Amino acid sequence: ENLTVGQYNLVYNAFSFGFATLAAATIFFWLGRSQVDTKFKTALTITGLVTAIAAYHYFRIFESWTASYAFIDGTLQATGVPFNDAYRYVDWLLTVPLLLIELILVMGLSRSETISRATRLGLLAALMVALGYPGEVAASGGGRWIWGLLSMIPFLWIVYELFVGLSKSISNQPESARGLITLARNVTVASWAFYPVVYFAGAIGLGGAGSEVIIQVGYTIADIVAKAGFGVLIFLIAVRKSEAMA
Amino acid sequence: ENLTVGQYNLVYNAFSFGFATLAAATIFFWLGRSQVDTKFKTALTITGLVTAIAAYHYFRIFESWTASYAFIDGTLQATGVPFNDAYRYVDWLLTVPLLLIELILVMGLSRSETISRATRLGLLAALMVALGYPGEVAASGGGRWIWGLLSMIPFLWIVYELFVGLSKSISNQPESARGLITLARNVTVASWAFYPVVYFAGAIGLGGAGSEVIIQVGYTIADIVAKAGFGVLIFLIAVRKSEAMA
Ligand SMILES: CC1=C(/C=C/C(C)=C/C=C/C(C)=C/C=O)C(C)(C)CCC1
Ligand SMILES: CC1=C(/C=C/C(C)=C/C=C/C(C)=C/C=O)C(C)(C)CCC1
Repeated sequence: ENLTVGQYNLVYNAFSFGFATLAAATIFFWLGRSQVDTKFKTALTITGLVTAIAAYHYFRIFESWTASYAFIDGTLQATGVPFNDAYRYVDWLLTVPLLLIELILVMGLSRSETISRATRLGLLAALMVALGYPGEVAASGGGRWIWGLLSMIPFLWIVYELFVGLSKSISNQPESARGLITLARNVTVASWAFYPVVYFAGAIGLGGAGSEVIIQVGYTIADIVAKAGFGVLIFLIAVRKSEAMA
Repeated sequence: ENLTVGQYNLVYNAFSFGFATLAAATIFFWLGRSQVDTKFKTALTITGLVTAIAAYHYFRIFESWTASYAFIDGTLQATGVPFNDAYRYVDWLLTVPLLLIELILVMGLSRSETISRATRLGLLAALMVALGYPGEVAASGGGRWIWGLLSMIPFLWIVYELFVGLSKSISNQPESARGLITLARNVTVASWAFYPVVYFAGAIGLGGAGSEVIIQVGYTIADIVAKAGFGVLIFLIAVRKSEAMA
């Protein structure tokens, strides 16, 4: 599994791009707090935390990537320092529950509904990530499939909750925000569905340098859409709802 | 006491996770200051200080961990640079008294009761940490037991103060915040009780790589619950009490 220089650089630049985008998004969300009603400030704080935590992990993952390869006499060689795949999963363990909480918060449901939905979705998300990790680092293709399929169970449950469980709450939203909230829900489901696709694409060509590149670049794109892109929608929803209240 | 690569990585990722969580929590608390009444801003400032101080120490402890091992020719080896255990105790010396002060502050007691309770609890906490340290670095299992048991005396006194001393003040709290304050008190006692458990679990298998891993991962989980988790409760209490005042 020897990487070409082109493959090495592609991943290298994807990580740097991920860091820059997520750090910039963080500042956008936190500065935006002053433009929305108090009720929605926590949602923007959390959106910014998600991208901040992710930016930190992209910084670390970039460092881990550059530490694991070196140019010796002009050719690219593995240094023997292992690339730390766990950063992504540590990141998801924190950010995926936060993203779901954010979606719930911006809907402005009653206190008890907020707590029960956020707890259930948060726990399912943590379970999904915890089941995926052993598969990501499995030595064999079989392990990748088994853990991945187990992780699909909480994933599909979350999708069900978002589509069926939230549909009534969505129809109670103010007219001007309803379209955006539906969009945020759909962006969540669509961007999240991209992760298992990347994961199983990695299972098909397991071990090859090509599948390493697909996984790293694929997850990076998915992270940017699911965190920064989604956050922009949350910001727009908060602004519209604040206007509707004023 | 040779660590496997898996054990090394587990501790490595736990430290990185601790840093990310505590740094994110800090920002959450400080941004949240703008959402509460002036009376509770100091409590949020302090919650954020606790997590900020801890984030700093996790950064340092991570650096100390990576400095004490290296991958040489693809295998993990101790470098001879000692891992600095003292960071945790320096951290606790600062953060444990602050946590207790925070709990007192958010209760909004009279000025004289605030001062006398905060002083007593703060001193007991400092004593508890100071007595624990010689045991943590003791070369023999016996030393670990003796200092640990001495440290249990102020610890149990604190637990007593929280349960018995504070119960009257808790029943004077406004209805809407009482449940959360009781929860914060219970989370304090439960999460703090986890520290001596980790400590004595380390005494049982002292010296082995396994007990090093248990201690480091165990304290990290405890720190996240006792500082970030507890802080979220303080934030919620402050928000509810501010609403009740408005
Ligand atoms: C279903 C499934 C997975 C789903 C991962 C998801 C849905 C991750 C979402 C991450 C996000 C949204 C990060 C941004 O904050 C795994 C773990 C790849 C393993 C294979 C099965
Ligand atoms: C009783 C006891 C201990 C208690 C430690 C505690 C209770 C630490 C709490 C730390 C917190 C809350 C940090 C977060 O800010 C030691 C020192 C392990 C030594 C063994 C006996």
